[in-house]
Amino acid sequence: MDDFNPPTRLLMGAGPSNIHPRVANAMTAPLLGHLDPDFLGVMDDVREMLREVFQTKNAATLPVSGTGTAGMEAALVNVLEPGDTFVIGTNGYFGERLAEIGRRCGAEVVTVEHPMGSPVDPDAVKARVASLKRVKAVAVVHAETSTGVLTPLEPLAAIAHEAGALLVVDAVTSLAGVEFRADAWGVDVCYSGTQKCIGAPPGLSPITLSERAIEVMRARKTKVQSFYLDLTMLQDYWAQRVYHHTAPVSMIYALREALRLVLEEGLEARWARHAHSAAALYAGLGAMGLAIVAPEGHRVPSLTAVRSPDGVPEADVRKYLFAHHGIEISGGLSELAGKVWRVGLMGHNSTVSNVLTFLSGLENALAGQGFEVAAGAGVAAAQRSVRADLA
Amino acid sequence: MDDFNPPTRLLMGAGPSNIHPRVANAMTAPLLGHLDPDFLGVMDDVREMLREVFQTKNAATLPVSGTGTAGMEAALVNVLEPGDTFVIGTNGYFGERLAEIGRRCGAEVVTVEHPMGSPVDPDAVKARVASLKRVKAVAVVHAETSTGVLTPLEPLAAIAHEAGALLVVDAVTSLAGVEFRADAWGVDVCYSGTQKCIGAPPGLSPITLSERAIEVMRARKTKVQSFYLDLTMLQDYWAQRVYHHTAPVSMIYALREALRLVLEEGLEARWARHAHSAAALYAGLGAMGLAIVAPEGHRVPSLTAVRSPDGVPEADVRKYLFAHHGIEISGGLSELAGKVWRVGLMGHNSTVSNVLTFLSGLENALAGQGFEVAAGAGVAAAQRSVRADLA
Repeated sequence: MDDFNPPTRLLMGAGPSNIHPRVANAMTAPLLGHLDPDFLGVMDDVREMLREVFQTKNAATLPVSGTGTAGMEAALVNVLEPGDTFVIGTNGYFGERLAEIGRRCGAEVVTVEHPMGSPVDPDAVKARVASLKRVKAVAVVHAETSTGVLTPLEPLAAIAHEAGALLVVDAVTSLAGVEFRADAWGVDVCYSGTQKCIGAPPGLSPITLSERAIEVMRARKTKVQSFYLDLTMLQDYWAQRVYHHTAPVSMIYALREALRLVLEEGLEARWARHAHSAAALYAGLGAMGLAIVAPEGHRVPSLTAVRSPDGVPEADVRKYLFAHHGIEISGGLSELAGKVWRVGLMGHNSTVSNVLTFLSGLENALAGQGFEVAAGAGVAAAQRSVRADLA
Repeated sequence: MDDFNPPTRLLMGAGPSNIHPRVANAMTAPLLGHLDPDFLGVMDDVREMLREVFQTKNAATLPVSGTGTAGMEAALVNVLEPGDTFVIGTNGYFGERLAEIGRRCGAEVVTVEHPMGSPVDPDAVKARVASLKRVKAVAVVHAETSTGVLTPLEPLAAIAHEAGALLVVDAVTSLAGVEFRADAWGVDVCYSGTQKCIGAPPGLSPITLSERAIEVMRARKTKVQSFYLDLTMLQDYWAQRVYHHTAPVSMIYALREALRLVLEEGLEARWARHAHSAAALYAGLGAMGLAIVAPEGHRVPSLTAVRSPDGVPEADVRKYLFAHHGIEISGGLSELAGKVWRVGLMGHNSTVSNVLTFLSGLENALAGQGFEVAAGAGVAAAQRSVRADLA
């Protein structure tokens, strides 16, 4: 087996995203035992910084030892019991995944379906919740990674709490890239991933649980069906040092360093940076005559789904960008497969420089498909957006 | 939050173990997207090398994106359905964990209990299996990490297959450190961990499934209760590139490099190295008048549980080794808590040099507790063992 020397790519898809060199270096630090006092200090640091990033005081805040989907499953499997009613406002691929996992928990899953590209409508969710006898949890994807649509959370928290239900939120693509306030908004269970706006490699899923969620877990009549994702045991490990599993030590080093970078920058400054580079991207795409899937006011700055113009084979454009510019973007999922590109501007990668590089490459790729735009129009518009934004 | 500069420890507990610098460096390689052709190549490399390490031709061989406990749960949750009868030969902490996870799968769990420190007796398992109507799976821990006891697998495979059941094996502490032959021995489902004899950081759990196990999964009447650990979907991702979750890219780089090191050394040479350093450890402990928990002929070379002598506070000895020699060893679990030390010689760390360092430190620690041994007796006996072994 040969040495492995992976090429350097500009990762502008749905994640992972390129990481800061400090995060990469952190993984090479000497391993510690998972119960070593120095490692316990690292665990405490990570929990404290995660609380800041989630904007919560929740004691039960920790990284699950798996990727975002493990976090999603942990969120549901700890809260739902067989027969519970679970309402999801779905507007894309990851909402569907929540429904699928809810069914595997034995819950009665009720989906309030929205077209891909629309935010979740609180009135529709409210009506559906009101029609049901007893709802255990309401879930929504804050930033739908399949469409780049942002759904406001406060109205949904009010609806859930009025019905005596928990609000479960997927913040995989939003956390640390766009305003997020777990406590102020009334979020009960929220999970994310490390490889998006947090800026670490994939492999961990930060999760936080409100006191209300903890009460629901305490009142369970059945054991959590997953031992690995049993959050009561995980919290005992993270808070009381009771052995549960061997933490992925190097990944937790990486997360610690990534969180330090987030907080050194400052959360609000980081949100502003993501908004700033996203605005440049929107301006450039608009100038090139390309349509963004998400409506204005509901756009996720870290992930933009763009419609591939009629007659342009979307996969060929991605291949061109990849082959000639070393840029990775993602294709569409579900009914948007073959119809959109998904462009990520996440964490360390959310920069104007990357926007300009991408728009320039995209213009070349489109020209190769006979879709001509005025030379440099996208880049020029992005540049003007930057100037206006800085003014 | 400060810079983190963890101290260098000699990790001689139950894992994680220190890793080769090449493995640490591999994690700093540029991230690739989880569907990048170069990353798909890495995935293929890892699968091919894992097959070699498991000594199997099983197509369904891959690393689960979680630690050893995730592998344990994946093994059971894919095979067991509610109401299935599941027999476990238990002889320690991790056998009990198999039982607990089996119950969470809704299985009827039948434990064939053995004292901690004994291997699992095939006759006892055979009698119990024969008394049951229909057994879906029989499980055993190959190398019980709580006691350092090795249980031969071939007799148990014969018993399971005769009853039409699968043999599920926990090889977390044995794989790549002691002879293991999945195909030749008739193992149907086997999982391991990366942080023990494989020599990578914790975070992944290699798993392999025989055709017999795949047939059982295909014949399921119910969906696998875990989406994250659904091995049919995971195999589709690893073999057919169907998106399931974002693989922990950096960890998989580390695993690839660790597996390269395993195969560069050669499996049989690696097993021999583990046996060689373990023999030195046994000789040293014996000369110091200390008793090993596992009987001769059933010892795991990568993990040795040693009885703490009467009157010696076992935790104080561990603290001394840690504070004054930077050596981490583990304490006991379950009924052996407070009674034993667990000493790991795993992967990169399984060297005579580490044995001598540990024995020397242990002698100092014991002397501090008033347990005097002839000065240097342990080290001298280890040295003689090495010479005899090399002769």
